Amino acid sequence: MAEVQEKGKLAKVASYQLNGITTKEKNEALEYIAKQLVEDKEKILKENQKDLQVGEKSGISTSILDRIMLDDTRIEVMYDAIFQLIALDDPIGEVLERLEKDNGLRMERKRVPIGVIGMIYEARPNVTIDAATLALKTGNAVILRGSSSATFSNQAIVASIHQALAKSKLPADAVQLITDTSRETAQQLFTLNEYLDVLIPRGGKNLIQKVLQSSTVPVIETGAGNCHMYIDASAKQELAFKLVLNAKLQRPSVCNAIESLLVHQDWFKEHGNSLLEKLDKEQVKIYGDENVCKAFSKAKLATEEDWYTEYLDLAISVKLVSTCEEAVNHINKYGTRHSEAIITQDNEHAAYFQQHVDAAAVYHNASTRFTDGFEFGYGAEIGISTQKLHARGPMGLPALTSSKFYIYGDGQVRE
Amino acid sequence: MAEVQEKGKLAKVASYQLNGITTKEKNEALEYIAKQLVEDKEKILKENQKDLQVGEKSGISTSILDRIMLDDTRIEVMYDAIFQLIALDDPIGEVLERLEKDNGLRMERKRVPIGVIGMIYEARPNVTIDAATLALKTGNAVILRGSSSATFSNQAIVASIHQALAKSKLPADAVQLITDTSRETAQQLFTLNEYLDVLIPRGGKNLIQKVLQSSTVPVIETGAGNCHMYIDASAKQELAFKLVLNAKLQRPSVCNAIESLLVHQDWFKEHGNSLLEKLDKEQVKIYGDENVCKAFSKAKLATEEDWYTEYLDLAISVKLVSTCEEAVNHINKYGTRHSEAIITQDNEHAAYFQQHVDAAAVYHNASTRFTDGFEFGYGAEIGISTQKLHARGPMGLPALTSSKFYIYGDGQVRE
Repeated sequence: MAEVQEKGKLAKVASYQLNGITTKEKNEALEYIAKQLVEDKEKILKENQKDLQVGEKSGISTSILDRIMLDDTRIEVMYDAIFQLIALDDPIGEVLERLEKDNGLRMERKRVPIGVIGMIYEARPNVTIDAATLALKTGNAVILRGSSSATFSNQAIVASIHQALAKSKLPADAVQLITDTSRETAQQLFTLNEYLDVLIPRGGKNLIQKVLQSSTVPVIETGAGNCHMYIDASAKQELAFKLVLNAKLQRPSVCNAIESLLVHQDWFKEHGNSLLEKLDKEQVKIYGDENVCKAFSKAKLATEEDWYTEYLDLAISVKLVSTCEEAVNHINKYGTRHSEAIITQDNEHAAYFQQHVDAAAVYHNASTRFTDGFEFGYGAEIGISTQKLHARGPMGLPALTSSKFYIYGDGQVRE
Repeated sequence: MAEVQEKGKLAKVASYQLNGITTKEKNEALEYIAKQLVEDKEKILKENQKDLQVGEKSGISTSILDRIMLDDTRIEVMYDAIFQLIALDDPIGEVLERLEKDNGLRMERKRVPIGVIGMIYEARPNVTIDAATLALKTGNAVILRGSSSATFSNQAIVASIHQALAKSKLPADAVQLITDTSRETAQQLFTLNEYLDVLIPRGGKNLIQKVLQSSTVPVIETGAGNCHMYIDASAKQELAFKLVLNAKLQRPSVCNAIESLLVHQDWFKEHGNSLLEKLDKEQVKIYGDENVCKAFSKAKLATEEDWYTEYLDLAISVKLVSTCEEAVNHINKYGTRHSEAIITQDNEHAAYFQQHVDAAAVYHNASTRFTDGFEFGYGAEIGISTQKLHARGPMGLPALTSSKFYIYGDGQVRE
């Protein structure tokens, strides 16, 4: 408890100090961080090797080891990302509303930092640098709680950040790393309401659910994407093939790839087998409903669980529907409110689908793969919110801000 | 459990139906509700009498009985409020962002309803009609869980709403009242993540803390206001007297009244006793720090607890400080992030105070009593948010909305 409490308090104090910091001072600090990172590269890579060795010994999978691994290129990517962040407009101070009342009272609602942001995340040590720099750009302090599998790397990176901040006008305490990666420290962060203003989990479904279920600190839910593509009766064959193959195959391991295909029965009669053949040729496992399995022998019968599953892999569930409404209802039941698409030449069906599907992003005749802060022009991404409060969809810098009313008077009282 | 689960499910289904409803249809339904309320007035007042009788027998305080009480005037106020709501612009459908990408993909971020809103509240039956009509205006379904002390009144009001909705294009299931007012049903709402998108508690500090501590559904924290006024060294005497008396006395029982006074020691030497005399003459109990007690004999010594206390009554805590910074630090330690004010002729001090105090509304030379949705020109108020995510300060209709990306393509895929 000592570490979490103590670092929470330090971060809170630092967050108050950050209120007086200018954009120029923040950008200078970010530049120091970028440069220090490259200066400390050898040290960081050496510590990263330790994580990899421990990981290998304890039998961590190669795909997770790959996420932990740092090399020259990955450090360079971090370095470049910081300069991209420096180039972005500072949202802090922006006036969101203005009002002047008859009694002369003037009001401005201005963007302000949230305060202290908690990040709980898995494997990837690049989240450490990402989260710290995004928080600082928006005037927030941050408490980082990475996973034990990247503990040496995270400590080396944060040491480098602290060294850079010491040269800057920003308090070094604005970035805190919880070095005790036991379950207890995560648990303590869930209820650190005194010092934490928000908690953002980054990682797999289990981590996110755990945080959502256990935290009394407000959480921003990110990530899980059980995304669907619905091929309506009037969909053009060529368009449908192109979009399904892109949304499933271009990068199957990410949250905006599709996991489930809903097909109008009439369209399926004409083109279904040929589409499934194409998927099968690309090594995609097909879990179909009874009708699909009858028509396409290589499909396995989908269980109820399949409709809920985010495979993040070369696999897809396929179901036939008889109306656009049936597709919408299926998505609203099994979806995770991330990204959903309809392929149709019928604009009324498209409008119905876009209005009634409950998700952050709803596409007509385009691949779901575009749901991403960079594709949306934000220049940065904290994550993709699948909840409805505060932020929905790709979160850029404004998602890390709150607002405050500044009210100017000369003696106004309420009668 | 049966009631909460069942009504949760019905509300969710209704919320999907509300996606297809027009502004005109919503306003028609609101008009039906207003008229039905007046038509059912006798019935509602009769049921309200039952609540009052039960309350008297069980020894509920007269101030709470007054909150439960309905009469012709109060019904009329509800009626008028609904017509004011009808006149407000519908936020749903508003385009918040627009983007066209080089590849021809067009994006619109539109305001949409949140979905299903849960309201947990105490005593006042007018919250029942308020919450229901605000939710419907913004296309949301609502689950109402009032207190047992107003159960007959709430049931009569919701029966009236249901009768009105039956005449409208809106599903009657959009408004659900939990009639079992045992603790268990509140507890069940805290974890009804499957059907509830947000939970808004309205009432005392204990209720709000209970919901915050126990809910896994996202909560919007409202209400508690331990508000401060800081009199800086350069404050004009007349201005300070006027503002302090207004902020403390104009309506002491509300959240934007001040509970604590911080006074610069130099100013206090000259004007302190005279100000405290005025407060004392108005029956305000004064809890001072040691210096205040030495100077003003009618003051009682404040305990540590006093600095945290929202009296909501004729009482105030008073502390001397030697700098503006000390005042800010005190507020950030003991305040509830609601409304705070500085009285000063020094613009640098005012700017420092407004930038560094962590609260929804920070005033310079004006009474804190203005923090209110109607005073801020919103035409309606769901509550005053004291948290930093989603909404901060007085919440108008937009606080009951989320957003969704509508994305229009003609075959765009990600390369």
